[in-house]
Amino acid sequence: MQVNPDNDVLISEVGPRDGLQSVSRIMATACKRRWITALYDAGLREIEVCSFVPAKHLPQMADAAEVVSHALTLPGLTVMALVPNARGAEAALAAGVHKLTIPVSASAAHSLANVRKTREEMIEEVRRIVELRNDTAPGVKVEAGISTAFGCTLQGDVAEDEVIWLAAQCIAAGADETGLSDTTGYANPAQVRRLFRRLRAEIGDKAGAAHLHNTRGLGLANCLAAYEEGVRTFDSSLAGLGGCPHAPGASGNVVTEDLVFMFEAMGLRTGVDIVKLLAAREPLKTGLPGEPLYGMTPQAGLPRGFVQGAVHA
Amino acid sequence: MQVNPDNDVLISEVGPRDGLQSVSRIMATACKRRWITALYDAGLREIEVCSFVPAKHLPQMADAAEVVSHALTLPGLTVMALVPNARGAEAALAAGVHKLTIPVSASAAHSLANVRKTREEMIEEVRRIVELRNDTAPGVKVEAGISTAFGCTLQGDVAEDEVIWLAAQCIAAGADETGLSDTTGYANPAQVRRLFRRLRAEIGDKAGAAHLHNTRGLGLANCLAAYEEGVRTFDSSLAGLGGCPHAPGASGNVVTEDLVFMFEAMGLRTGVDIVKLLAAREPLKTGLPGEPLYGMTPQAGLPRGFVQGAVHA
Repeated sequence: MQVNPDNDVLISEVGPRDGLQSVSRIMATACKRRWITALYDAGLREIEVCSFVPAKHLPQMADAAEVVSHALTLPGLTVMALVPNARGAEAALAAGVHKLTIPVSASAAHSLANVRKTREEMIEEVRRIVELRNDTAPGVKVEAGISTAFGCTLQGDVAEDEVIWLAAQCIAAGADETGLSDTTGYANPAQVRRLFRRLRAEIGDKAGAAHLHNTRGLGLANCLAAYEEGVRTFDSSLAGLGGCPHAPGASGNVVTEDLVFMFEAMGLRTGVDIVKLLAAREPLKTGLPGEPLYGMTPQAGLPRGFVQGAVHA
Repeated sequence: MQVNPDNDVLISEVGPRDGLQSVSRIMATACKRRWITALYDAGLREIEVCSFVPAKHLPQMADAAEVVSHALTLPGLTVMALVPNARGAEAALAAGVHKLTIPVSASAAHSLANVRKTREEMIEEVRRIVELRNDTAPGVKVEAGISTAFGCTLQGDVAEDEVIWLAAQCIAAGADETGLSDTTGYANPAQVRRLFRRLRAEIGDKAGAAHLHNTRGLGLANCLAAYEEGVRTFDSSLAGLGGCPHAPGASGNVVTEDLVFMFEAMGLRTGVDIVKLLAAREPLKTGLPGEPLYGMTPQAGLPRGFVQGAVHA
């Protein structure tokens, strides 16, 4: 979903959800508000602000409805929430989100471990969420994100046929779009190209976002490959927060700052002001003091003479 | 220069030169020997082992001739050295290196600051080095590396026309190949594609290596872009050592481990054994205790079920 037709790509910020749920400490609600506002002020127009899950499992997300309520005050922002099941979707829709994202594991092993459901049961869950949406909030978009689409820490390889089958099943169940997630940081550029090409061949313009991780340093290379394959929506996380608790020191999600720098340096418009984006690290630092923040562009600074929006030829 | 025709790309390891000269401490000669042997044992077949420069400027390289002498004992290894001028080339040729690399700045400002010569004077230096080579060691290859080819910390933008002009002048002066170096970590994938395409159009198969840095996190994305543009030789540094003293915490050169992982995961053959490559970090750690080592793949480990040489489909 491209919010602003003047932009070439849509950066979908997932830090407040994917990032904060990977950190054991809990960011105070007021800090979340300030951080989300800073992200919005930098020009981000789609933010995954929380997940609707039982507070006993993820106390970091206990204030989800309050966070959504704040995000809804920011004009033009698409407010997204992750929901693992119909109960979460009900709460998210009641809170007023604009878009739901449902994680559906391509790995049979990961599906059972993560949501205690088989993949077939998750497809039924997508169908239930879509029905709920149709009945109560027909304007809300539903995205299915195929997790472990590029490999799984539990079972290793994931068959590409099964990834594409599952994506098609989610669309058949009524999802508006299906993206592919490299939950484990296993993807390589050749695989990214191959899978997104197959995804587009299978479900056309219902092919959704690339959600790629930087666990082995290939995050931006994989985003580049996805871009060249026609993907125009990219999930990323400010300061690379989140994603991979099993790889200490390895940043999880693709770093929003580096991703925006890459696209803007290439002459592509993201709608995001890099200087303001770097400033959005401050409320994150304040809200989670001492938490390691990643990102190479923030450390190195912008190149001398770099003017955003100018193509450097 | 592709050493082994069975491989798809040649990884040219620059750590012992670019890395060690960026670290203020001096690695003992015996440690350098062990490290170079470990790199060789991992399958690397082109290593830039030192630079021939006055020891008062770079005491880290005072043992250059000894290091070359050891490297020459490793069968099938192309032993490279950096030489900034004819005097350095004379010493390198006397030591018996197989290949010289000469840094030629595309930025007029950087050229004066780095080697106290104008670009035109450096072209004359290339000519002198080529004559010396022709007279004394005709089998030795001469590479010119166009530094600051993608931008300069002193002058900002560097005109692409001047980069291509300079590369052509180096070939006209007798260099066997000319590569492009992102000395400052300013490059983006679109620019990498554009410049290597122009380089190839200008000098054909004398177009040499991509020497890219990871200062802003784009190193692997830039390597991918270069690969897709036909580049087959890539400079990189084990543990990302070296490159950017002005960006603390930001790794300098592209990390060899991550680069090899990317290419091998894509199904391309590098000739390098990743497990042995990771083991080659040990002698580096021992030789420079406490020095920060970079690299995401070393931190995260290889994906579950990853088999080198198998295409993961």
